Amino acid sequence: MLICASVPAFAQQADYQNLLNMCKACHGETGESQFSSIPSLKYQNADYLSAQLAAFKSGQRPDKTMSKVAALLSEKDMQQMAKYFSEGKGK
Amino acid sequence: MLICASVPAFAQQADYQNLLNMCKACHGETGESQFSSIPSLKYQNADYLSAQLAAFKSGQRPDKTMSKVAALLSEKDMQQMAKYFSEGKGK
Repeated sequence: MLICASVPAFAQQADYQNLLNMCKACHGETGESQFSSIPSLKYQNADYLSAQLAAFKSGQRPDKTMSKVAALLSEKDMQQMAKYFSEGKGK
Repeated sequence: MLICASVPAFAQQADYQNLLNMCKACHGETGESQFSSIPSLKYQNADYLSAQLAAFKSGQRPDKTMSKVAALLSEKDMQQMAKYFSEGKGK
């Protein structure tokens, strides 16, 4: 907890936005993918999404792009990304 | 073409419905999954869905359940299942 508290809140927010922007680049602002080979994430079950991110990171589900992306994510990041898209946020 | 024509249309329809019912058992009638660990398929991109079914069948994407399910599907079946859910059909 002390380690978390030592990180300024604005830095945590910037990290969150940067990670989210990385997701949005392919999956769309709201998770509605415009690319037929890329899945839409909008309203997808959060538990499923975070489990898939973990599977990409562990190598259990290999994917050229997502394996690299998921390697950058902590467990908390995965939960946050999953929460964002599952709630159908964005414009 | 002659081989296809020799299969009665009602048998083909029955196969399609049986396969679809297998999908619906977990993913929901319209593809809106009620289980947090199981993905919703409604309105998902068809190309993505059929590619994932192929990946389950080939073993590229291992999954306890879907590896067995996909083993039962022909390429045409995969395209049909993907089409059904991508179009958001059902009640």
